[in-house]
Amino acid sequence: MHRFDLFKKISHPNNSKIILLVIDGLGGLPIEDKTELEHARTPNLDSLARVSICGIVDPISPGITPGSGPAHLALFGYDPLKYEIGRGILAAAGINFPLERNDIAARINFSTIDKEGRIQDRRAGRIPTELNEKLCHQLNSICLQSVEIFVRPVKEHRAVVIFRGENLSSEITDTDPQQTGVYPNPPRALSKEAERTSQIVSKFISEARSILSSHHQANMILLRGFSKPPEIPHFSELYHLNPAAIAAYPMYKGVARLVGMHPIEIEGNSIEDEVKILEDNFQNYDFFFLHIKQADSAGEDGDWKRKVSVIEEVDRLIPRIRRLNPEVLIVTGDHSTPSLLKSHSWHPVPLLLHAPTCRQDEVEQFSEKACIRGGLGRMPAINIMSLALAHAQKLVKFGA
Amino acid sequence: MHRFDLFKKISHPNNSKIILLVIDGLGGLPIEDKTELEHARTPNLDSLARVSICGIVDPISPGITPGSGPAHLALFGYDPLKYEIGRGILAAAGINFPLERNDIAARINFSTIDKEGRIQDRRAGRIPTELNEKLCHQLNSICLQSVEIFVRPVKEHRAVVIFRGENLSSEITDTDPQQTGVYPNPPRALSKEAERTSQIVSKFISEARSILSSHHQANMILLRGFSKPPEIPHFSELYHLNPAAIAAYPMYKGVARLVGMHPIEIEGNSIEDEVKILEDNFQNYDFFFLHIKQADSAGEDGDWKRKVSVIEEVDRLIPRIRRLNPEVLIVTGDHSTPSLLKSHSWHPVPLLLHAPTCRQDEVEQFSEKACIRGGLGRMPAINIMSLALAHAQKLVKFGA
Repeated sequence: MHRFDLFKKISHPNNSKIILLVIDGLGGLPIEDKTELEHARTPNLDSLARVSICGIVDPISPGITPGSGPAHLALFGYDPLKYEIGRGILAAAGINFPLERNDIAARINFSTIDKEGRIQDRRAGRIPTELNEKLCHQLNSICLQSVEIFVRPVKEHRAVVIFRGENLSSEITDTDPQQTGVYPNPPRALSKEAERTSQIVSKFISEARSILSSHHQANMILLRGFSKPPEIPHFSELYHLNPAAIAAYPMYKGVARLVGMHPIEIEGNSIEDEVKILEDNFQNYDFFFLHIKQADSAGEDGDWKRKVSVIEEVDRLIPRIRRLNPEVLIVTGDHSTPSLLKSHSWHPVPLLLHAPTCRQDEVEQFSEKACIRGGLGRMPAINIMSLALAHAQKLVKFGA
Repeated sequence: MHRFDLFKKISHPNNSKIILLVIDGLGGLPIEDKTELEHARTPNLDSLARVSICGIVDPISPGITPGSGPAHLALFGYDPLKYEIGRGILAAAGINFPLERNDIAARINFSTIDKEGRIQDRRAGRIPTELNEKLCHQLNSICLQSVEIFVRPVKEHRAVVIFRGENLSSEITDTDPQQTGVYPNPPRALSKEAERTSQIVSKFISEARSILSSHHQANMILLRGFSKPPEIPHFSELYHLNPAAIAAYPMYKGVARLVGMHPIEIEGNSIEDEVKILEDNFQNYDFFFLHIKQADSAGEDGDWKRKVSVIEEVDRLIPRIRRLNPEVLIVTGDHSTPSLLKSHSWHPVPLLLHAPTCRQDEVEQFSEKACIRGGLGRMPAINIMSLALAHAQKLVKFGA
């Protein structure tokens, strides 16, 4: 029996509520003997850990550093090696674009090229979102035979393009060479079936270039992450949940939407704003994905102190989350982002699960080191959802 | 290479003996800080743990609560998601019925219906087994065209029916609605292929009803768990073992028989009776599945104290088992049955493996908490058999 069939069969709705708090990039590496999480003052997370069961989680499998897409798919219980989400699809979903099954999406970077066509700035000096919106409006008017094209702004220099038509393929290489001083790459077909699509993309880029030519900074576009929507069952079908996503960043709303979560709009960008939204909407859903981006950003910037203070800020909000009294509260990360490495890493991530039915262990601190000795041991992230559902008493017995 | 092919290839018989002691529903949850196993006085299990390697086992996978069938399949090394055993087949195997490959079996409950046909008692007041036997004898005379029908008593109100014939299907819904005050459900076909079978079952039920109509209490039958025998290799073929099952309850003899174990008849029902049988037959087999039901029954009844005392009773018998000096002695459970939940649960189960070749760890007590720190870590139950065989030196090297 496939995992999906199993969950469809044994899950059933009840009134229990689950909160999955994801501190993006939570895991770290020691600088002067302590990781960010170990150094941070986290009295609330620590006292929560004392009445929880803890463990350490591999986002994909030992040694594999995940991007945000696969890391979140795994957190949501989908095998990230089986179901890939391209960057284009993530971006489209993140801005609430109504994707259709055979759409092809790609991420756009507005960028600056010199007179010879070489890339000077891959992000066009991070143009303001307002200019982005204006430019997308212009590009959206590009008309090519037999294919519909949608160009939508995301934020600053980031936009997304969706190609809709018959027999389109996502097997197209990135045009973004990820460096400056060189020419953009042409979109190349990776299979025979993709040749027509690569010609369409090529025409689209050249029309875009001529439309943008009058703009000083954003005079070119770079495309990457050509992809189709993954064919995965939604949370409602798979787990019989009515799930909400609380995430400030579009990409995370995007991946949540792909699994059928309802992204709630947030006013403001702070962690406290997100907790406020959780409080305000707690009666309307039975599952909450609460995503805290700031720890990952700090880690990527190599800013150890800032990551520590993000974790401390989350810690101060824990009592407000606990006051909601969810049946299951899980705190973890999607992956590690050690400030030392300034990037995502493969190191496993601490996990804490609090529920009346959890078999409490002897972990007294929420940290990488302490969680290794937790009662959940070391496990792949894909198991988190089944544990959440089990502790929320939403799963019936399998087999006689 | 499929797991089965691996084991067929690398396993070979020798004189070593393996005892797999399964304390059904062993794992628990704390009441006043301690689980049943933690509270129980278990000096013998604890001193055994000190010279063993311990761990914690997921019957299926984290979060999944197994029924007895899948839980035992996993203990025996078969993937329970791939090989499902229906309740009917379990019941038939449990009473030693010689099943054939295409037989369809279903569990029968003798039950009481009122004049309008609504269910009053799903268990017919738990009629005595003697009456059950008489009624089955009558139902066994039902004769339908093109199909053989066998009706056999199990215990109290429980019986089993086997349909034998060409092109029969097990895709038939239960007639037992699992509640009183309503009519029994008709047997419905879940596929086109099952339509003929559903008609046969329907006729069988209506003939049974007219035969039973003169009986005051057991005037109806309810059927559930229509199923076929799983196609799995036997222990002899797979592991080159000559295995015995010592289990007082029919269902466990049933699942053991399905994997080719020889169930030894037990006089009496006590745990000590089972150990006596083990002692008496120790020279005749090389693998012993010793099943203790009473811990699960106590857990299901929510009787924390009784579960504690069952565990203590097992503990007192451990020296007799050790005196047999098996090369490998494993003590574990098929799943957790916390008295707190009064049901099977998903919580992992402590495991202890004693063998001259085991790499002893620092576990000093046989308990949920202590075993987490054991040398085996946390693993799925399906790995137990290969460890048993390895420590019994029954597996040769894989590959050059």
